[in-house]
Amino acid sequence: MSVFQREFSLKPRHRGFHIITDEVLQHIPELKNFKQGLANIFIQHTSASLSINENADPSVRTDMETHFNIMVPEYADHYEHTFEGPDDMTSHIKTSILGSSLSIPITNGKLNLGTWQGIYLCEHRNQGGSRKLVVTIMGE
Amino acid sequence: MSVFQREFSLKPRHRGFHIITDEVLQHIPELKNFKQGLANIFIQHTSASLSINENADPSVRTDMETHFNIMVPEYADHYEHTFEGPDDMTSHIKTSILGSSLSIPITNGKLNLGTWQGIYLCEHRNQGGSRKLVVTIMGE
Amino acid sequence: MSVFQREFSLKPRHRGFHIITDEVLQHIPELKNFKQGLANIFIQHTSASLSINENADPSVRTDMETHFNIMVPEYADHYEHTFEGPDDMTSHIKTSILGSSLSIPITNGKLNLGTWQGIYLCEHRNQGGSRKLVVTIMGE
Repeated sequence: MSVFQREFSLKPRHRGFHIITDEVLQHIPELKNFKQGLANIFIQHTSASLSINENADPSVRTDMETHFNIMVPEYADHYEHTFEGPDDMTSHIKTSILGSSLSIPITNGKLNLGTWQGIYLCEHRNQGGSRKLVVTIMGE
Repeated sequence: MSVFQREFSLKPRHRGFHIITDEVLQHIPELKNFKQGLANIFIQHTSASLSINENADPSVRTDMETHFNIMVPEYADHYEHTFEGPDDMTSHIKTSILGSSLSIPITNGKLNLGTWQGIYLCEHRNQGGSRKLVVTIMGE
Repeated sequence: MSVFQREFSLKPRHRGFHIITDEVLQHIPELKNFKQGLANIFIQHTSASLSINENADPSVRTDMETHFNIMVPEYADHYEHTFEGPDDMTSHIKTSILGSSLSIPITNGKLNLGTWQGIYLCEHRNQGGSRKLVVTIMGE
């Protein structure tokens, strides 16, 4: 067994849910050396998160954004932490709901995702900028 | 250290939250060979999810279903992605809230769950069918 | 590669969101022996959870508690599982939303968290007591 790790930054994306599977894979060509194992993808931020969801119809991503904005509303009066604007505290809450890392099985040198699964960057800030990821692969 | 991986399908279950700890364990008897490590359980779908919660009183599972149906309501008018019915987009949202994988410590050949913890399959579709899991165990 | 595991109990904390990064690190001085790998932190309870979020302004933690109490309200009439009080079922729901474990990359003997990231114990019960964690480290 061995471990491999790489840190990199994603291209900046506008607020919303984005499929980043291909961009992540471009940064870790070493994945093909692992017959079986796990890949952990970790985001080093508290106002953007990672998730796995449908990789096909774009309306899934826009509905995600719509629903999270209803479930975690910006113009509620119960937030104290709004120094950086109405998207500040809501971004922290969405991040904890969705999570900061993914663990995905590796089989025969590839991420063993289901047919319809893709990796999502969930950008919760209006101006999030480039987000840093750490990918850690363990296996043989 | 070594890695072990197995893919299998769960029995189909109706919509709701279900304890699947025993069914998962039946598929991975090799678990007993690991003195310490981690088991990752990954679901290859975007409309069903995995969670850990109380393994005793069935009312926890029915209340989970009730609450998620309120928090992610089917008959809201803000979803575009409803091609497959009112349980389509809501299933994707619930999946991202709950998550697609679990990482559970292994100690002395067993999952080191707390006394009250069980593994949940969260079936969000009305007709979800059989769900595919990938279990990856790493340890020694 | 090697695996290291330790179980320990956290100091009891009142209901709310608490930064526990330093307390966790005090229990795993062996972390410094891992050049790269992953740390999994698992909580053995179904009414308290773990998350990663902002490690600076305390208002983030109070706003988290406020928002989760709105999103998962105690005095709703749709819960059956309320034997132990109004904070019983809501704690189970919050636990599944936030999650029971974290996987954090290790780089050069340290948790490779972002500048603003800290580990949160999310204590959902009014009287939660001491919570048990299992930390599993794998790497080289």
